Amino acid sequence: MTNTQLTLIQIDNYGPWTVTPNPRREVDLQTLQSRLYADVSQLVGNREGYAFFGRFDNMVTVTNGLDRSDLALIQEAIGNRYPVTASLSTAVDPSPVAALGRASERLQDAGSAQDDTRRERLLGETLPDDERTDGDVQIAHFDVDDATGKYTDQLNEFDTFIRIEQGYAALMRHMREAHDSLSFFVGGDNVIAVCSALSAADYHDAIKHVADAVDVELKVGVGRSRVAQAAGMAAKHALEACRENGSAVEFG
Amino acid sequence: MTNTQLTLIQIDNYGPWTVTPNPRREVDLQTLQSRLYADVSQLVGNREGYAFFGRFDNMVTVTNGLDRSDLALIQEAIGNRYPVTASLSTAVDPSPVAALGRASERLQDAGSAQDDTRRERLLGETLPDDERTDGDVQIAHFDVDDATGKYTDQLNEFDTFIRIEQGYAALMRHMREAHDSLSFFVGGDNVIAVCSALSAADYHDAIKHVADAVDVELKVGVGRSRVAQAAGMAAKHALEACRENGSAVEFG
Amino acid sequence: MTNTQLTLIQIDNYGPWTVTPNPRREVDLQTLQSRLYADVSQLVGNREGYAFFGRFDNMVTVTNGLDRSDLALIQEAIGNRYPVTASLSTAVDPSPVAALGRASERLQDAGSAQDDTRRERLLGETLPDDERTDGDVQIAHFDVDDATGKYTDQLNEFDTFIRIEQGYAALMRHMREAHDSLSFFVGGDNVIAVCSALSAADYHDAIKHVADAVDVELKVGVGRSRVAQAAGMAAKHALEACRENGSAVEFG
Amino acid sequence: MTNTQLTLIQIDNYGPWTVTPNPRREVDLQTLQSRLYADVSQLVGNREGYAFFGRFDNMVTVTNGLDRSDLALIQEAIGNRYPVTASLSTAVDPSPVAALGRASERLQDAGSAQDDTRRERLLGETLPDDERTDGDVQIAHFDVDDATGKYTDQLNEFDTFIRIEQGYAALMRHMREAHDSLSFFVGGDNVIAVCSALSAADYHDAIKHVADAVDVELKVGVGRSRVAQAAGMAAKHALEACRENGSAVEFG
Repeated sequence: MTNTQLTLIQIDNYGPWTVTPNPRREVDLQTLQSRLYADVSQLVGNREGYAFFGRFDNMVTVTNGLDRSDLALIQEAIGNRYPVTASLSTAVDPSPVAALGRASERLQDAGSAQDDTRRERLLGETLPDDERTDGDVQIAHFDVDDATGKYTDQLNEFDTFIRIEQGYAALMRHMREAHDSLSFFVGGDNVIAVCSALSAADYHDAIKHVADAVDVELKVGVGRSRVAQAAGMAAKHALEACRENGSAVEFG
Repeated sequence: MTNTQLTLIQIDNYGPWTVTPNPRREVDLQTLQSRLYADVSQLVGNREGYAFFGRFDNMVTVTNGLDRSDLALIQEAIGNRYPVTASLSTAVDPSPVAALGRASERLQDAGSAQDDTRRERLLGETLPDDERTDGDVQIAHFDVDDATGKYTDQLNEFDTFIRIEQGYAALMRHMREAHDSLSFFVGGDNVIAVCSALSAADYHDAIKHVADAVDVELKVGVGRSRVAQAAGMAAKHALEACRENGSAVEFG
Repeated sequence: MTNTQLTLIQIDNYGPWTVTPNPRREVDLQTLQSRLYADVSQLVGNREGYAFFGRFDNMVTVTNGLDRSDLALIQEAIGNRYPVTASLSTAVDPSPVAALGRASERLQDAGSAQDDTRRERLLGETLPDDERTDGDVQIAHFDVDDATGKYTDQLNEFDTFIRIEQGYAALMRHMREAHDSLSFFVGGDNVIAVCSALSAADYHDAIKHVADAVDVELKVGVGRSRVAQAAGMAAKHALEACRENGSAVEFG
Repeated sequence: MTNTQLTLIQIDNYGPWTVTPNPRREVDLQTLQSRLYADVSQLVGNREGYAFFGRFDNMVTVTNGLDRSDLALIQEAIGNRYPVTASLSTAVDPSPVAALGRASERLQDAGSAQDDTRRERLLGETLPDDERTDGDVQIAHFDVDDATGKYTDQLNEFDTFIRIEQGYAALMRHMREAHDSLSFFVGGDNVIAVCSALSAADYHDAIKHVADAVDVELKVGVGRSRVAQAAGMAAKHALEACRENGSAVEFG
């Protein structure tokens, strides 16, 4: 059984801010969003977690090993560095989807994402130290088989991008619906999934589903550990093993 | 007629770099990618262009108004600030897809994205000053109608994200296939498209297509100018007019 | 004759902000300050100017070639990306000290640096295009002769730092008092000065003054151009010529 | 007795890199340096240490609480994000100057700062966990009494800067020579010192020395703890107490 601690980081009242008093320059919004994500990635990553940019104004992070004071510090750091603030909501569950569901609900109960008076809320529960185990987090790192040879070096960049996006859209939906898992595009031809305790057969099934649905061939390395970073690094090494062995699924 | 100048910015040999000599930490890759994009966004944006993160290792930028020396400076700035280098390939065409197609081909002809000896190539042609007109660039700024009320404040964040992603996947494919236009997710519930000279009817058609295909309601503001930034800002103001008027399509 | 356009960028009400409601973490302040400077450096540098960090909450920038709308955009970009705002005050004068003096006075007349109601003021005048000449900006790039061999590789790092600082303190005062010029430490063993039209004899005098006062040996390359960036690059090449020729002063 | 763990972070072969094959643009160097410092500040700060920019190519950091693997990760993160690499050398001593002295020597013994073959060295010893105490780190936070009223709002910005710099130059030398302590300008009118176990009388002496030497009035808050961040935050609160009480020296 996994036991994933997920924290939803939501920028407070961001939509209205981007157009008040007038629409802000896109270059400034893009700069703000990508830097804020880079900071969250480091603040969480320095504590052995993983952060995904998602929609940028709503970021999903895997925070096993972080306690309430760590999360408070991340919230404070955002407020000290940016013109916007953020609310954080955390939940723990064997199913990543269920954890994110509870975290989302708690935040929604506290007020709308566009409620100017709901600011810097720090909600939810973290996993007590004595309940943590070495198998709490399962991370899967997918990439597209020979994406450079088949796509990047052959198609125009947008058509390559469409192929990668169709593969991602099919995978994210299947992994969520069939396997309670959350999959995030992380650049290039890479997708990282936060999973419940899936078997090799489950991963073969997911790869087959995507190949059938949109004709994109994936491979995947899987890792498991007490925290996201170690699980993710094991997954990367397992993916290298796929490359060497010509296999589609490897566990690290 | 539009006349869009597009520059493809491709990190040289990035895939192999990320796993040499061993897979690098994901937090460092995410930090590098999002910062590199923030820098490109500023380097292009300071010259009135637009930059999209796309796959991060391949970024599409609208560079009307930038000449070869501007592009060389961007390339030099990347090499001076990051552990990786980038190649840039530029083409101009009434059709954004055709422009990106020629830019992609030129870069592919110069070598593979994973060819260690193909580095810092600066390829292609820019639009001569005396051929530039005030209608060269058409930008459309889409968002999801009442995304906060319907999704963000109702669903778990991943299910919201799935809805936004399905809407984006349907839109990007339709706009490319039916309208030669390039659409990019830019965070939240926003998509910005670089378009050929489309009519209001074309945009109504695109919105209807997405509603029928995946049941996501979009609205769009459209702007046109000599450069991407002014066209994009006009599009944002037009989108505000949609909000005020309850309309689905407005031209700025 | 030089004609330097200087812009003072002052963070509004920064001191009180750093301790309200409680003192903010030093790591967040340092991160904010150094990133804000990096952004100003790029926003000005992308328009061929130079920016110096100075005291970080007050930055001096050389902005020949930037007009009022460029300065307004820099101000807007800061407000869109940071939790603080900035006021900008600009003046032009053959003497850099006199230009900064007028820019400082105008800003002081508009209110205190710790006046919460004085925010985002954009003050002063820029140099009209038809009055600009190819010799408006003189930049001098100093470094310490063989700093690595004499200090970095020999002393403990703090004692090296003390030597560099004493050299800088002596140079900054002398250049200001004797030559109306503004000198800024820019890292390592480098100082960049924004100068009025100084002769080779003036630079030999400054170098001798520092050697006599604090026993630190400097050399300097000097460049002159229409904008700071070209003048500064010429100064760097001239400093390389010093290295090759064993000379103390070279003009580019 | 204090027991300060200091880590010298030196960019490898930086001087030659800045001019190879030609001098690099100053804007790129300034951007690189200030961002690298911001990252080091966070990487160390996220582990409750303090980082000072110093000369930027040589940064002094207080790393009590970080072990060898933490330092290795910081080194790896720099190499993964920047076009340069860094060597780190650590030593522990009741006297901060002595600690930095040993750290500097070890690095010098390993090769010159401009030796292209000396790269990413990780040297020295850290303080074993069972020898750590709650009083290991003493931090003093100085500022200039009423700097805004006396200088910023009165003088031209460069003359204010000269006053602050003269105050800093006098303080840094005195604290090093009389008290084995390392003082760093951190922006505005603030100086933070890493101290051996100094008494209130020692701080009164330092303040008097600076007032006599260069006529700049300082006040100081002092904190002490197991790690730099807690000591530094206590020092900030003590400095606020000075403000409220009109006193020159307060211990937190």
